[in-house]
Amino acid sequence: MCGIVGVVGTSMVNQTIFDALTVLQHRGQDAAGMVTSHNGLLCLRKDNGPVSEVFRTRHMKKLHGNIGIGHARYPTAGTSSSAEAQPFYVNSPYGISLAHNGNLTNTAKLKQEVFESDLRHINTTSDSEVLLNVLAHEMSSENKLIPTPDDIFNALERVYKRIEGGYAVVALITGYGILAFRDPDGIRPLIYGSKMSESGGIEYMVASESVALDAAGFTIERDIQPGEAIFFDVNHKVHVRQCTPKKVPRPCLFEYVYFARPDTVIDNISVYKARINMGDRLAAKIQREWQDHDIDVVIPIPDTSRTAALQIAQTLNIPFREGLVKNRYIGRTFIMPGQAVRKKSVRQKLNPVPFEFKDKTVLLVDDSIVRGTTSKEIIEMAREAGAKKVYIASAAPEVRYPNVYGIDMPAVTELIAHGRNVDEICELIGADKLIFQDLDDLIEACIDEKHSEVREFDTSVFDGQYITGDIDDAYLERLQEARNDSKKTSSAVSSSSDMMYPM
Amino acid sequence: MCGIVGVVGTSMVNQTIFDALTVLQHRGQDAAGMVTSHNGLLCLRKDNGPVSEVFRTRHMKKLHGNIGIGHARYPTAGTSSSAEAQPFYVNSPYGISLAHNGNLTNTAKLKQEVFESDLRHINTTSDSEVLLNVLAHEMSSENKLIPTPDDIFNALERVYKRIEGGYAVVALITGYGILAFRDPDGIRPLIYGSKMSESGGIEYMVASESVALDAAGFTIERDIQPGEAIFFDVNHKVHVRQCTPKKVPRPCLFEYVYFARPDTVIDNISVYKARINMGDRLAAKIQREWQDHDIDVVIPIPDTSRTAALQIAQTLNIPFREGLVKNRYIGRTFIMPGQAVRKKSVRQKLNPVPFEFKDKTVLLVDDSIVRGTTSKEIIEMAREAGAKKVYIASAAPEVRYPNVYGIDMPAVTELIAHGRNVDEICELIGADKLIFQDLDDLIEACIDEKHSEVREFDTSVFDGQYITGDIDDAYLERLQEARNDSKKTSSAVSSSSDMMYPM
Amino acid sequence: MCGIVGVVGTSMVNQTIFDALTVLQHRGQDAAGMVTSHNGLLCLRKDNGPVSEVFRTRHMKKLHGNIGIGHARYPTAGTSSSAEAQPFYVNSPYGISLAHNGNLTNTAKLKQEVFESDLRHINTTSDSEVLLNVLAHEMSSENKLIPTPDDIFNALERVYKRIEGGYAVVALITGYGILAFRDPDGIRPLIYGSKMSESGGIEYMVASESVALDAAGFTIERDIQPGEAIFFDVNHKVHVRQCTPKKVPRPCLFEYVYFARPDTVIDNISVYKARINMGDRLAAKIQREWQDHDIDVVIPIPDTSRTAALQIAQTLNIPFREGLVKNRYIGRTFIMPGQAVRKKSVRQKLNPVPFEFKDKTVLLVDDSIVRGTTSKEIIEMAREAGAKKVYIASAAPEVRYPNVYGIDMPAVTELIAHGRNVDEICELIGADKLIFQDLDDLIEACIDEKHSEVREFDTSVFDGQYITGDIDDAYLERLQEARNDSKKTSSAVSSSSDMMYPM
Amino acid sequence: MCGIVGVVGTSMVNQTIFDALTVLQHRGQDAAGMVTSHNGLLCLRKDNGPVSEVFRTRHMKKLHGNIGIGHARYPTAGTSSSAEAQPFYVNSPYGISLAHNGNLTNTAKLKQEVFESDLRHINTTSDSEVLLNVLAHEMSSENKLIPTPDDIFNALERVYKRIEGGYAVVALITGYGILAFRDPDGIRPLIYGSKMSESGGIEYMVASESVALDAAGFTIERDIQPGEAIFFDVNHKVHVRQCTPKKVPRPCLFEYVYFARPDTVIDNISVYKARINMGDRLAAKIQREWQDHDIDVVIPIPDTSRTAALQIAQTLNIPFREGLVKNRYIGRTFIMPGQAVRKKSVRQKLNPVPFEFKDKTVLLVDDSIVRGTTSKEIIEMAREAGAKKVYIASAAPEVRYPNVYGIDMPAVTELIAHGRNVDEICELIGADKLIFQDLDDLIEACIDEKHSEVREFDTSVFDGQYITGDIDDAYLERLQEARNDSKKTSSAVSSSSDMMYPM
Repeated sequence: MCGIVGVVGTSMVNQTIFDALTVLQHRGQDAAGMVTSHNGLLCLRKDNGPVSEVFRTRHMKKLHGNIGIGHARYPTAGTSSSAEAQPFYVNSPYGISLAHNGNLTNTAKLKQEVFESDLRHINTTSDSEVLLNVLAHEMSSENKLIPTPDDIFNALERVYKRIEGGYAVVALITGYGILAFRDPDGIRPLIYGSKMSESGGIEYMVASESVALDAAGFTIERDIQPGEAIFFDVNHKVHVRQCTPKKVPRPCLFEYVYFARPDTVIDNISVYKARINMGDRLAAKIQREWQDHDIDVVIPIPDTSRTAALQIAQTLNIPFREGLVKNRYIGRTFIMPGQAVRKKSVRQKLNPVPFEFKDKTVLLVDDSIVRGTTSKEIIEMAREAGAKKVYIASAAPEVRYPNVYGIDMPAVTELIAHGRNVDEICELIGADKLIFQDLDDLIEACIDEKHSEVREFDTSVFDGQYITGDIDDAYLERLQEARNDSKKTSSAVSSSSDMMYPM
Repeated sequence: MCGIVGVVGTSMVNQTIFDALTVLQHRGQDAAGMVTSHNGLLCLRKDNGPVSEVFRTRHMKKLHGNIGIGHARYPTAGTSSSAEAQPFYVNSPYGISLAHNGNLTNTAKLKQEVFESDLRHINTTSDSEVLLNVLAHEMSSENKLIPTPDDIFNALERVYKRIEGGYAVVALITGYGILAFRDPDGIRPLIYGSKMSESGGIEYMVASESVALDAAGFTIERDIQPGEAIFFDVNHKVHVRQCTPKKVPRPCLFEYVYFARPDTVIDNISVYKARINMGDRLAAKIQREWQDHDIDVVIPIPDTSRTAALQIAQTLNIPFREGLVKNRYIGRTFIMPGQAVRKKSVRQKLNPVPFEFKDKTVLLVDDSIVRGTTSKEIIEMAREAGAKKVYIASAAPEVRYPNVYGIDMPAVTELIAHGRNVDEICELIGADKLIFQDLDDLIEACIDEKHSEVREFDTSVFDGQYITGDIDDAYLERLQEARNDSKKTSSAVSSSSDMMYPM
Repeated sequence: MCGIVGVVGTSMVNQTIFDALTVLQHRGQDAAGMVTSHNGLLCLRKDNGPVSEVFRTRHMKKLHGNIGIGHARYPTAGTSSSAEAQPFYVNSPYGISLAHNGNLTNTAKLKQEVFESDLRHINTTSDSEVLLNVLAHEMSSENKLIPTPDDIFNALERVYKRIEGGYAVVALITGYGILAFRDPDGIRPLIYGSKMSESGGIEYMVASESVALDAAGFTIERDIQPGEAIFFDVNHKVHVRQCTPKKVPRPCLFEYVYFARPDTVIDNISVYKARINMGDRLAAKIQREWQDHDIDVVIPIPDTSRTAALQIAQTLNIPFREGLVKNRYIGRTFIMPGQAVRKKSVRQKLNPVPFEFKDKTVLLVDDSIVRGTTSKEIIEMAREAGAKKVYIASAAPEVRYPNVYGIDMPAVTELIAHGRNVDEICELIGADKLIFQDLDDLIEACIDEKHSEVREFDTSVFDGQYITGDIDDAYLERLQEARNDSKKTSSAVSSSSDMMYPM
Repeated sequence: MCGIVGVVGTSMVNQTIFDALTVLQHRGQDAAGMVTSHNGLLCLRKDNGPVSEVFRTRHMKKLHGNIGIGHARYPTAGTSSSAEAQPFYVNSPYGISLAHNGNLTNTAKLKQEVFESDLRHINTTSDSEVLLNVLAHEMSSENKLIPTPDDIFNALERVYKRIEGGYAVVALITGYGILAFRDPDGIRPLIYGSKMSESGGIEYMVASESVALDAAGFTIERDIQPGEAIFFDVNHKVHVRQCTPKKVPRPCLFEYVYFARPDTVIDNISVYKARINMGDRLAAKIQREWQDHDIDVVIPIPDTSRTAALQIAQTLNIPFREGLVKNRYIGRTFIMPGQAVRKKSVRQKLNPVPFEFKDKTVLLVDDSIVRGTTSKEIIEMAREAGAKKVYIASAAPEVRYPNVYGIDMPAVTELIAHGRNVDEICELIGADKLIFQDLDDLIEACIDEKHSEVREFDTSVFDGQYITGDIDDAYLERLQEARNDSKKTSSAVSSSSDMMYPM
């Protein structure tokens, strides 16, 4: 998962993009980058590392210009190289830079096409570099010295026909403007807003989440629609085209469960409100299924599950306690020559307040259970802290299938719910009781009939239904192999092109 | 405020100290440092910056040895230079390194003595460097080639007679061990624990907070007592001496209010439990004073106040809501040549979930109100989010006096409660209603008769009573001047010695 | 002036390219860069600074592959940005990287063409980036998925028709090989050689000077001919085409006077031998013109003039003395806030051995006199050291015209010989006598009838004759303006794109 | 060997010290450091690397003050750690920093004394740190709050009684001034000078070589005498004391042969003139011993031998030719994982001009022959370049013994002349003929009766006579072992304290 942002401003935009990336960094803190444009020249800075480390004063000083885009990258298998930080850039045509959140599902085919039809060299394994070159190729085909918005949209319509998957994209076309577009199903989020600058002109920001607009003082205009493209030109005019047949969005359900910040609104659905509803519905299920439960206290596994957990506690009328304290600072294990790698204890991330556990039956609440390893460690920790019994509730259903639209999940075989039922999982993680949200409940929790027309979601990680229709078993097998392979060889592969762009 | 740690291990301690500093970093992320000792040689790394940036693999590789100390520094007025990062070091006698949390109140006098009696050069404005030189001087006076624990304690008793203030200290005496000691009133916290290493030997850690022991798998032994010194020698023997008359600790009340992590236990008082009690007592006051209140929802200002706020909500039987979302990533405003400095909006730290405010009377809960500027901004934000009325409750009483025991507070004249009553403060921050905890209630909230013998605290920031007895008006006036001066000239002053030690 | 190199090896070439750049660094130590290719992926490292600082172990580790090119850049007006370090790269077609020594005289026109016909964005002010895009455009026009050497040469023939000036170029065509070519007059040098690798395969190196081949153990094959292109494919096959009508080279005379290393052989003329001849001919002129001279000692201004000066001394039968000692280490003046910039004394570069000057009439010998400022300072230094009289001889004639083929000269108005005769120059620099080599003598000194067919040179800096035939007064006026402008605004201009590529 | 400098100025001295270190860098470019003092505070910067890399603008900005000392370090066995860069610092008494050129021969004993009598911790293996602590101890013993020059000299007299070896030292006593002193035999050089500043005050510089004074515009006052100490106080007063019995200096002969810059004057002997004399005397020996020699050309091995070689050529009346060209830029071999280390060819340092060798009998001249490995490679190179015969002459006699006064020599067993006669050496290096200067001739070459009273030298590397009288076989055996050991384990040993001081 990644965070993207684009700004057309009336003064220098580097600080605004920096601020937006900081706010979006929960979507990816593995690498960051920014391109700005000034007098027709581009300034690029990107590298591995969190936003605060990638951008130093010496870099900011050189990121001139009133227009630019930015990217914050989540660590995904096989893309650990700083050369794969975004935005990517091609100089032909126009000089186009691009930042992307999502995943293309026909990358291999596109990569070959791009080289064969257009002789374009791809220097990384990133699908974003491929996407940029497809866009560049189609814009080249228009062959316009000064492209009009229509030229750009015409080219983009051909891009839509070629690429498959879930994606949200911002692209800076040097000298002309910023193009933003979203996949035909609206799987990945993209929203834009505006604000009056002090000088009186109107400024635009387009970003992955509404919180970036909030933090920078922009007012939400609306979500970009599935298959819709918006072009913000350098004269601050906004051009819109629906490039694929109009649909109601089917956003990724996992954004609401885990990825998005609670104060974000995606496709007019409040993430916070959805999580409250998840708590309500899960509480109802607990009441149904564990009628005579003996839960003494509800304790969230911070931070994401807090909203749902509070609601569970209130609904069940059980005390809610912050019995697990999260360490806000990121630890790290150094590999010393000649030393065995020490296992990093979950203790460095979470620490119990013992008397909230002592002799109690606790219900731990997590947003979801993926590998199950952390759950297992926390349950052990709860027992060591003196818990009488440890129950665990997951605000999301069992995660059983890989995500192909941009969320980096472990290989299917590493998913604890893959091929296991609740009892088996419960035993494996060492809980006394375990309960998952039902998928229908989760969907209902997210639907907000009053504010949003969304009624369906991408639910593939839960039910294996891939809404783009192009995912077959062969694809999933290749994916499984790639994830296993990349785990083994990622350092070797990625290092080969590690230095193509970044400073 | 700062975090300190010392470890006597059976294998390399650099990772353990790194982990402890990471966990203690809420006490100070302005600078960090570590000294380890190997074969009689010292390895030092310290610099400005958070722990994760100060220690890179290239530094860790060189931090050899099974014994060492570490420090995480809070940004205090006039000590922004990397040369003032700790630990400090003197080579005579023995090679002593020292890390300190707290503040000496007779630094100026000591500095003069240290130079005049011992010709010792002090190269920074840090009281910790002075403290180290007083200790070094007294240990020199013992004039022992191989100091016994008794020699060390004898020297330390003279140190206690000379220094005044609140302090917790760890000092590495090269070749001999780690000395840890705490001021005669136990104002600043210090605790130690032990663990069996994989190789069978016993290891010791002494640290500012128990959470550091938890995270590293050490079992708490006990708090260091007021005026007590403990010497962990290189053979893993523990030596203890009570160096000043035995007293019950009077720990800093502000540790419980704000500084310490909730899962920490200081002098056998759980910070978490104290905060719950603060919520209970503040709720009772609200019920007394605002009998017909119309509060719809209780919203904590994250993160510290969450525990108390939850308790207020439960006691008042009002819904508790996480209506303000905190950005976990640290923003920064770059100063660009030729640009005006933009005011950093509180929006980059906190963002409201609007529907939790819309048309509601909200009670915001904060741990304390110091300058009042943030409170004012948050109240504005709440109103913009649609709140009908905005009330605010402070889990601590009015902060009216400077702290002289190591907490960096603004100059007295910047404290919003200085010379103002509740109504005046309420008007200034723009709230509809404002309520502060009573000091007696706060004290009662912290007292835990069952587990701890503590009955009194350092309450000076609230009532101006300085328990060390050496603080007079002249001292406070000088402090006020220094804080005003340092604000104006800190960059010039600090830079002059910026490079004495660090890499 | 710059140094370029390309290597097609049988094992990793990064160390070989590093070594070659080190040896070529007298041609430019302002910036350095290298691109290598491995399994179809490119690895790029470039930055401002000397070779030894630009390439650290961490970069070298990532510069994989058996094929690559390198560049060392001389500081030229307006190109101080690290983004203008070479090689440059475009991804379409094939992924082409290019390093260039020389100057195109129709850059502005080409830049416009490249954008208008091919929509290619140029992000710097470097003519090398333009040249790369012209090449890329013409290779695109061939539209071959797998380009044969003939396809490449066909494209290159069109490039030759479009570009004007003096140039020597190496270009890495990813996956296919290295293309090397030289301008139609052979103004800038380019030579190649081969060696058998330990594994038995043949390796090729192409470089600006033969010394790079020497140092890396390559045997000289021959100079690339004017208008000739050589393509070294990835299978180590060598393909040659004469792309413009065959001519005898007319190399830049200043290479022999100053730029090239003495042990270099350019177009079969030994630079060392040419400099000996310069000494002979200048000695003869001295004998003719200063028949009763009273010279006591000949002292070279190190390092370049040493060879000629020794020959003058031997021919005149006067003692030769190393009376001026050069500091081998590069000084620097730091600009401190609030301090006036101190004038850097020539004393930091050169120091006299006083007794070689004391009461003597000295003949100082320099390779050439450009601005005259250094000459003036050295003459003063000689007088302070006690010289009775100070004569000065220049191994090259008066420099009166700008260089348009890649040597960065000051603006014409800053050339001391511009509009002045020998007596006027002599007075200005404060010498007692001054003598310049005659241009005919210089030409004769360089001609080596036995080994080389070269009979003519580019002599433009001395006589204003630009052999490419495209330089008119308008061009020179624009150049003069640009040099004046760039001096004033270079920092502002360059910084805008300072970060496009480098790490 | 190292270069040292101290400056008492009337304005900031950081640039002046930087310039002096740049000029002295031929004495050591392995590490560099500087301490300045401002308002009683010290600013230190030191690190491994050449002067130009150690001092960046960000460091210079912080090196405040009108007084300071500097150091440039030669790479010596076992001191590769950046923690061993100089100056060293102790805070007691006064804060003393020290930079040292030379070697103490009783370091081990002193180190023990320093710890046992004064409990002073030594954190490196550097004798300079020991020397500083001896000085600090003796100054402590004076126990003066404000030390007068007499107090300082009294302390120093005791230091002289304790330390043995060859040394030249500058020490900054914070708040009081700079102390400079030289060993009782004047083995290592030290000279001082003065200049009127622009503001009218007088400034002093003391440095290893007179060239540092020249470059910074200081006028030579005189050499510091053997056993003499000079104290430049902060009020720019100069105090002198002869601390050991007055003697005529017996400077290190190797300074004249190799170490010092030719334009330096040591103890009133011009290094340049001494090298001319070496050429004369070696030429005379050649004429005596090789009466019918067939030498066609004399070629120096650059740079040091050039002066002597020129004189040999002129005396023998044989052409002198610069047939070997030195690469001015420092190469480096990167160790790549999984690659064998490639042997670095001498070709990267030197390259022949072939036609100066072709079919000629060449006499190569070197300043000295130590290991013989480079000579061997150059002789091979000369043969490959076509030389008929290759003779070699050494301006210094056979180097047969270790240096114990600060020149880092290989272990005795690695000296090619150790236990071998001329014929054996000749055969080993593959020359056709070999001739060494006689020691008496070398001594006579250096004596300048007109300007200097020096008649004897430290000649120990040639004849094993150690003038300090304290060197016995046991010492030399330990040295031999240490040099072998340090070669094997230096990286492990040094890294343990690698980070004590530097930034």
